[in-house]
Amino acid sequence: MTWVDDEAFSPDQPFGPQTLPYGVVDGQVAVRLGDRALPLRPIASSFGDHADLVAADSLNPLLAAGRQAWTDVRARLMELTQASAAPKGATLVPIDNAVLPFAVADYVDFYSSKYHAENAGRIFRPNDSPLLPNWTHLPVGYHGRAGTVVVSGTPVVRPHGQRKGPVFGPSQRLDIEAEVGFVCGGPVTGRVPTSAAADHVFGVVLVNDWSARDIQGWEYQPLGPFLGKSFATSISAWVTPLDAFSAARVHTPPRTHPVQEYLVEDQPWGLDLLLRIDWNNTTVSRPRFADMFYSFAQQLAHMTVNGATVRPGDLFASGTVSGPERDQLGCFLEMSWGGRDKITLAGGEQRTFLEDHDTVRITATAPGPDGSVVGLAEVVGTVLPAS
Amino acid sequence: MTWVDDEAFSPDQPFGPQTLPYGVVDGQVAVRLGDRALPLRPIASSFGDHADLVAADSLNPLLAAGRQAWTDVRARLMELTQASAAPKGATLVPIDNAVLPFAVADYVDFYSSKYHAENAGRIFRPNDSPLLPNWTHLPVGYHGRAGTVVVSGTPVVRPHGQRKGPVFGPSQRLDIEAEVGFVCGGPVTGRVPTSAAADHVFGVVLVNDWSARDIQGWEYQPLGPFLGKSFATSISAWVTPLDAFSAARVHTPPRTHPVQEYLVEDQPWGLDLLLRIDWNNTTVSRPRFADMFYSFAQQLAHMTVNGATVRPGDLFASGTVSGPERDQLGCFLEMSWGGRDKITLAGGEQRTFLEDHDTVRITATAPGPDGSVVGLAEVVGTVLPAS
Repeated sequence: MTWVDDEAFSPDQPFGPQTLPYGVVDGQVAVRLGDRALPLRPIASSFGDHADLVAADSLNPLLAAGRQAWTDVRARLMELTQASAAPKGATLVPIDNAVLPFAVADYVDFYSSKYHAENAGRIFRPNDSPLLPNWTHLPVGYHGRAGTVVVSGTPVVRPHGQRKGPVFGPSQRLDIEAEVGFVCGGPVTGRVPTSAAADHVFGVVLVNDWSARDIQGWEYQPLGPFLGKSFATSISAWVTPLDAFSAARVHTPPRTHPVQEYLVEDQPWGLDLLLRIDWNNTTVSRPRFADMFYSFAQQLAHMTVNGATVRPGDLFASGTVSGPERDQLGCFLEMSWGGRDKITLAGGEQRTFLEDHDTVRITATAPGPDGSVVGLAEVVGTVLPAS
Repeated sequence: MTWVDDEAFSPDQPFGPQTLPYGVVDGQVAVRLGDRALPLRPIASSFGDHADLVAADSLNPLLAAGRQAWTDVRARLMELTQASAAPKGATLVPIDNAVLPFAVADYVDFYSSKYHAENAGRIFRPNDSPLLPNWTHLPVGYHGRAGTVVVSGTPVVRPHGQRKGPVFGPSQRLDIEAEVGFVCGGPVTGRVPTSAAADHVFGVVLVNDWSARDIQGWEYQPLGPFLGKSFATSISAWVTPLDAFSAARVHTPPRTHPVQEYLVEDQPWGLDLLLRIDWNNTTVSRPRFADMFYSFAQQLAHMTVNGATVRPGDLFASGTVSGPERDQLGCFLEMSWGGRDKITLAGGEQRTFLEDHDTVRITATAPGPDGSVVGLAEVVGTVLPAS
């Protein structure tokens, strides 16, 4: 037994010693150990040259420090948390009041589930081919609003906006999108080849890209989603390091034609994550991230291939994670087929889109080393009535 | 004569005492007086309670301080620059090495010229109605990449990317978009009504939204422009305060149906700016900003009507400024009608899109008080070959 005396801090638990996600609690960088957090400032001197990084008030300095620092700090944390005695000054605190762990620089949202893209195409553009010609050749994506990325637990106020008519009022088709997000770091640079992905991706979060489908449907042509998405995007309070996913790496699914050379991977960067979506405590879906058509390494290579720089704090999300089965869909638009079919929750409540006071919780796990399990911290949010 | 002994600092010149744009030179906030700049840190004590704002190394603290501070600092600058003797410590320096004057938070790009939207629609979607049904009801817009907003003078490297085929390589249809940008400040808040626009818009810049039309044409459906735009967006080095445009305010053009209530203005926020686009020293267009269908107050009201917050450092651009005439178009896509028609420059050179080493300069003026002229600082850039 290590000094961290917590059943939740064991290899068969998602936040055991194999995971070690970073967050910010009580105004300082902390690492999550089971269901508690270890603030690092009091033990910063244990990290040698990296003391300033772990003593900061957000993850941004650590993000900027780059790959070697990330490896070093994680290795030291593994030593410290496996020791029989606590480092001097170490105190475990609750994780409840974690805040947004880093300042989001640019936020990009991809669209890399073929199942989701086909379903959304069928629902939004019933008279067109569901998958547009570019989709199998490049990871389609767009920029979102960085300033409204919020931490898990932040309530989401139902947005006002224009919908078809046009009519102005509170959204009547408020939806979620269950996604996986990638937190960037390292030196500011353009053109990150797939082979350098691990030098620029620090870690992984869950994302709920809240979406007002009626606002989106009216506004989005020809320049893409704007107000239908920009009111709130929730992310996990804890960033699971990329290094924790060494046992979860898989190839992306087979494709019918080769990708452009800049999208070829020299090693697989698909991730075998299993997501779970709970709507008011009913599990309504279990999407598999391994079904995604493009990996995060391909997304990052694409995002920068035009010379656009990536900065510490940049966040990019996978796009809605949907699979081929009805219980593997990543948004309610798909589950209800554009509002046509009711979804029944425990207790018999029926839903198509979100009602006020509904709560959605997204969680995920991946296989860890030696049969362990690696967790992504939940992203949860409750809908408040339009103000 | 004031102590600022410079012919360029007179009311009939764009950067005379009626303009007073802010920038950052030599690592400090400065105000532009004619063709030179006055760094404010050495005279910060002249600004009383606002000394810290003008002694900063970027405009961000001043942006965050809000409307009253903006009014106070400008009034004090007018006094100081009209005095017969220089404030103690004042030194005028060259403007050549001005840098990006503020850290860009979120960047949004609108699409509010009806002429541009119709022309782009005809060129990109020849089989559809040029103006989509939403366009006259809301200011269509989307998020761009804040991290690649660069200061005027920064060279622009021709981007690589996928175009239809797909084929990968340097863009063959590199274009500009002449736009006007609005720099936000004041408290972080959602839902900024049109009546509060002046509390959240600090000033105005010119924007060149460089665009790779072949990349954009292949990628942009269904989620909008991404890599076709994200490699670089240039803005003026100097931000002309909104207060300098008191004599330039006009109503937006007549419309065929009323706008939604949240877009109604209680005072006109159209601006009578005349832009000029020079391509390798040939003036190829003089677009009128007064032709824009939506004002910046309407754009800001729309951008926040869903509750999305606006932060100090947010930047939003008008969209390409095009008028009804051939010599009033704001991009080369329109001037060459999608590459069909050649544009002849001085010396007989012919162009459709940008060639390597071409330089584009956008400038603009507006009527100022008492017959003076108010300038927006140039945005200039030269194309470098693909790397």
